[in-house]
Amino acid sequence: MADVAAEAHVSVKTVSRVVNHEPGVRPDTAERVRAVIERLGFRRHDGARLMRQGRTFTIALVVEDLANPFYSQIGAAVEREARIRQHQLITASAEGSPSRERAVIEALVGRRVDGIVVVPADESASSDAVLEASHTPIVYMDRPVRGTPRDTVLSDNQGGIRSAVEHLVAHGHRNIAFYGDDPAFWTARQRRDAFVATHEGLGLPSSPRVSMGPHTVGSVRETLIPWSAGPEPISAVITGNNRITLAVLLALRELRLPLSLVGFDDFELAALIDPPVTVVHQDPAAMGQKAAQQLFARLLGDESPAQTVVMPTRLIVRASGLRRAPLGR
Amino acid sequence: MADVAAEAHVSVKTVSRVVNHEPGVRPDTAERVRAVIERLGFRRHDGARLMRQGRTFTIALVVEDLANPFYSQIGAAVEREARIRQHQLITASAEGSPSRERAVIEALVGRRVDGIVVVPADESASSDAVLEASHTPIVYMDRPVRGTPRDTVLSDNQGGIRSAVEHLVAHGHRNIAFYGDDPAFWTARQRRDAFVATHEGLGLPSSPRVSMGPHTVGSVRETLIPWSAGPEPISAVITGNNRITLAVLLALRELRLPLSLVGFDDFELAALIDPPVTVVHQDPAAMGQKAAQQLFARLLGDESPAQTVVMPTRLIVRASGLRRAPLGR
Repeated sequence: MADVAAEAHVSVKTVSRVVNHEPGVRPDTAERVRAVIERLGFRRHDGARLMRQGRTFTIALVVEDLANPFYSQIGAAVEREARIRQHQLITASAEGSPSRERAVIEALVGRRVDGIVVVPADESASSDAVLEASHTPIVYMDRPVRGTPRDTVLSDNQGGIRSAVEHLVAHGHRNIAFYGDDPAFWTARQRRDAFVATHEGLGLPSSPRVSMGPHTVGSVRETLIPWSAGPEPISAVITGNNRITLAVLLALRELRLPLSLVGFDDFELAALIDPPVTVVHQDPAAMGQKAAQQLFARLLGDESPAQTVVMPTRLIVRASGLRRAPLGR
Repeated sequence: MADVAAEAHVSVKTVSRVVNHEPGVRPDTAERVRAVIERLGFRRHDGARLMRQGRTFTIALVVEDLANPFYSQIGAAVEREARIRQHQLITASAEGSPSRERAVIEALVGRRVDGIVVVPADESASSDAVLEASHTPIVYMDRPVRGTPRDTVLSDNQGGIRSAVEHLVAHGHRNIAFYGDDPAFWTARQRRDAFVATHEGLGLPSSPRVSMGPHTVGSVRETLIPWSAGPEPISAVITGNNRITLAVLLALRELRLPLSLVGFDDFELAALIDPPVTVVHQDPAAMGQKAAQQLFARLLGDESPAQTVVMPTRLIVRASGLRRAPLGR
């Protein structure tokens, strides 16, 4: 701390305030102190010393696709948590392939990263043996894995979908369809099951109409057409993620179908579409932060049993769910 | 290659085809071969051996904000190029701060990454001395730096803005405003200068109306109101990047101003807004790929003089630029 204070031309007390996130430090001063901490901190941790200590001050994040906004927000949050602790972050895309994920994790372990945050491609936990053998801490995100309990950070998928169904029903909808992602994904099944359970719990007249993906505009259109005609036409749609919301919006526009809609996942321009899209918001940045914090707790010696944290979701009401269904439906 | 062929249960010829991107290999086979290459490749490069060879098989990417889609697309492209060459990618956000960028680059050099791709926070090239001393290859992206010539990958900012102005003028617009980003950014100045030069080159009647940022919906509104009233009211707007496009769209909606618009940077839902937004598309994935390829060429011994590559932009015509201005303007 004295080194940092000297280099940043501030008092040790000021450095302490910055480190402990206490008030009373000007933003530009805090920025300067943090820059010095990073510079000095990193310098101390160079090559040979790291090897000797058996720590690399590097953590890793493995996701499906870094370009997807859901994962890039996770990435930014994990990188920030790493940076403020003077660690570096290696990122890798497994492209949804379990074999690629396994190869990537083996490589990361071989390079001796201190810990790994993974959004797993499936539930098989195929890297378990490698992780066990190397004692590399891991935190799973978004989807759990089978086998040995591991630290896991999930979204409240079921609560999110329930709030979507209840919102639509409260606004007069009785015939609602659900478009979910590929049921190979745990999250897709969770959301589907929550839709069916809420639908049944509310005693809605028709049987729940569910179409699972992977979806394209074409595959959505195929069921939208019959479901919006006939004796019990749907008046509203719930989607299982932001990609499907996009496909549904395009299909509704093509077919000129003015159905109500609640999407899972917020997206940047949801407020600019006509009508603005009501969504179930999950917070990937908060999930990433939580996962990284849990990983660092393990790196600092926390040996309590593996825990699963379920992060809340929130319904952001815009207008697309408000349209009242015609009377008599 | 023989090891890979044995482990993947294919012929050496097949491995060779996959490595050299030749046709004639089934996608699932190619995938399996690549997974084996990654697994074996990485294993060979573990700790001590890397230290001895002086190579870490790690490259780094430093950008402003990993959560911004422009940067996350770059990140995904660079990571892909690294992965297919059995390298890992460290990513870091400098949050637009030159001092943080410098600290991050020093830390990366201290950890002996093999090379760095940077979207620089400013043009000062403040890490030059560190890079020179360590002989770490660097490729700059999106913005150039002053001083020693370095490999640099840029977008054709000027050509992109010129095509936007010409598109609007061809559709009858004569009074066009430009909303640019903070002129501290080289790209913001490039785009502004291209707007003014094209405006003057076409001999448009009024003087060019330019408002530079940083912008909010409020700051856009402040000039939109006077500029869209008075004797020479504007009928169209060009923006300098995707964040400003969003601010302009929100301001136009609030003010109920039906102006034409061409935005710089495509965005995912541009086609769903009413009217669909015409944009100048730059390709961050292609830029990231190009930068990574250039870095790997240096790592393989390319010692030719530093080169600057300018990647083309493309006008994606939707509808927001097509509205003909009222006669007489």
